[in-house]
Amino acid sequence: MKIGLLGYGTVGSAVARIVEQRCPELEVARILVLPEFLTEPRMTANFDDIVSDPAIDVVVEAIGGIEPAHTYIARALAAGKHVVTSNKAVVAAHLEEFIGLADKHGVHLYVEACVGGGIPWIASILKARRIDEVTSFSGILNGTSNYLLDRMAREGVEFDEVLADAQRLGLAEADPSADIDGYDLKNKAVITAAACFGAPCRLDLPCFGVRTLTTELLGRLREKGLMVKFMLHGRASGTGYAAAVEPTLMASGSVEAAVPENYNIATLEGATIGTLKFYGQGAGGDPTGNAVVQDLLDCAEGRPQALELTRELAWEPELLRCDHVVAVNEEAAAALPADAEPFAEGMYLVPGRTHEELAAIMAQVAEKDPAPFAAMFEPAR
Amino acid sequence: MKIGLLGYGTVGSAVARIVEQRCPELEVARILVLPEFLTEPRMTANFDDIVSDPAIDVVVEAIGGIEPAHTYIARALAAGKHVVTSNKAVVAAHLEEFIGLADKHGVHLYVEACVGGGIPWIASILKARRIDEVTSFSGILNGTSNYLLDRMAREGVEFDEVLADAQRLGLAEADPSADIDGYDLKNKAVITAAACFGAPCRLDLPCFGVRTLTTELLGRLREKGLMVKFMLHGRASGTGYAAAVEPTLMASGSVEAAVPENYNIATLEGATIGTLKFYGQGAGGDPTGNAVVQDLLDCAEGRPQALELTRELAWEPELLRCDHVVAVNEEAAAALPADAEPFAEGMYLVPGRTHEELAAIMAQVAEKDPAPFAAMFEPAR
Repeated sequence: MKIGLLGYGTVGSAVARIVEQRCPELEVARILVLPEFLTEPRMTANFDDIVSDPAIDVVVEAIGGIEPAHTYIARALAAGKHVVTSNKAVVAAHLEEFIGLADKHGVHLYVEACVGGGIPWIASILKARRIDEVTSFSGILNGTSNYLLDRMAREGVEFDEVLADAQRLGLAEADPSADIDGYDLKNKAVITAAACFGAPCRLDLPCFGVRTLTTELLGRLREKGLMVKFMLHGRASGTGYAAAVEPTLMASGSVEAAVPENYNIATLEGATIGTLKFYGQGAGGDPTGNAVVQDLLDCAEGRPQALELTRELAWEPELLRCDHVVAVNEEAAAALPADAEPFAEGMYLVPGRTHEELAAIMAQVAEKDPAPFAAMFEPAR
Repeated sequence: MKIGLLGYGTVGSAVARIVEQRCPELEVARILVLPEFLTEPRMTANFDDIVSDPAIDVVVEAIGGIEPAHTYIARALAAGKHVVTSNKAVVAAHLEEFIGLADKHGVHLYVEACVGGGIPWIASILKARRIDEVTSFSGILNGTSNYLLDRMAREGVEFDEVLADAQRLGLAEADPSADIDGYDLKNKAVITAAACFGAPCRLDLPCFGVRTLTTELLGRLREKGLMVKFMLHGRASGTGYAAAVEPTLMASGSVEAAVPENYNIATLEGATIGTLKFYGQGAGGDPTGNAVVQDLLDCAEGRPQALELTRELAWEPELLRCDHVVAVNEEAAAALPADAEPFAEGMYLVPGRTHEELAAIMAQVAEKDPAPFAAMFEPAR
């Protein structure tokens, strides 16, 4: 099977290497790079050379970002080429369109590498759904933020210092917002919800970040046997669904609390299978490249990824109504709802709120405290 | 696809229920039960009614034990029927024979439900191996013993008392030996090694049990930040392999230490994928039945389980040479090798031993102490 590879960065070059070393049935025939990086004959700076080449069976998109990735994927599908992508942003934003194009042109779309790097997460969800209804999911699916929280908790180093370290080591971007404010997790939640529930998921999910977490707060929570993990959550029931991204208080002895460094873990609940968890490297060239190549092998075997959006679910934030713990200064505490109870020094338990209600509370609080922090206390009722 | 189901106990009845409720493309056409349990028309007490029925495409073996399961599976394969089994004992003992028969008669053998209940463990190993060499595995894959150790650690209740409780609750057998002396884990290690390494694995693996663990030992280990988990381990390198079953000292903050109750976790290491862990319910009708039905769906789609024993690896215990901690009385301590060092009260670190060397040491020690205990300290060098 001949591959047209778009992008030759961390993921793209890993895909090319793994294919060459381990998959004799696959061949990276063309590689799209920027004009200044044209270093070998199979490289081109012109996407037309790939999309118009009848010998190319499948396009691997490893550019990232929305454009031109969106246009390239849409054109590749319309040209009758299968598409494998590791680009969560473009998939979260255009999943329905891509699935529609793939169906229309009789080709397949593969998105395993978009969520959880090397963890076989999307495939495992779709496999579970052959038998079970998947009723909920959760996960630590951003390696950078887990690395930051893990080092803060273990070493007592403040957020800004750990972040600067991570940036020096290449573990965090110069602009860390996607990782620490939750935009990356939001895209992953959108794709995970689509896979778990078989329905489109809104893009503008409730989202609370970890930027305002301090080692002082971590210490007080630890005294209560709690760790902070930055997680996504989703739940469906009947004709509704909800999903959100929020720091989450996990018991110190829990499996999630033990997830170290930049590792990821993702959990699903199924009717007969019960709880399943999947753990591994959520980023990096080799693990993500491995996920792309797994999709390529399925494609070569003619096996589609059964990600279909055949249901229509209504947004129902009630499904994730739960307790939250918020940390605010004294002045802002006065702006909390009357049923908020002291939880620890500088922290309050706000019982039974949807994420939309929490967002309203945090907006009010933010007028008095420039750096409030909120965390789920019960992942679900 | 028409199924002949052998056995209608916990797993068999769950398979029938899941198929009926969730898989319109499958049908449990006949069920083999003992004569005294014949309660509906599709039931028979005569295996010939199933193996000779040309309408039956696949036989699900959920009887357990070696005979008559072995004979039934062999006859079903020879009669050109696919076989799905949840019986780890018969698969560990006869895997090569079954694979040979399946190949000869052009049918498929499926064994997912033998290891890790509802965890997609065998399928995930074989999937990883499409790209990677799997170099090692480990796992907590016996739910009963994990339940016992978890309650001992959390509640400080002694082994015999927790065991009696578990027996009352139906979580442990009247004869608990398979679970606490490691025979169950040994069968799972044999099947896991075959799947990970693509080679036959010897049945008589080194095996050390948890029967002699006390809450006193657990307490002293906890002071050193260590938890005891009952695990299997395997490793391959070059032309050799090793595997063993032994209580294992895991850091209190590790993912394994956090695995509660009767849950299971299994880990593989691959060349490009790195570490992958899979967590879920390792036993019970619904999870194990789910695994059987997943295999049935693959079978119905014509997808074989790629468990092939195409390599021949030599037994090489050096591959699991590691440190062990042994707990013995004072008299027996004098029988320990000269390089053993005090580790904690009543415990000694025996550095760098293969499991065969450890077995020799424990045999010597057993002359002076009727209840010695041994645990791996480093899962691998």
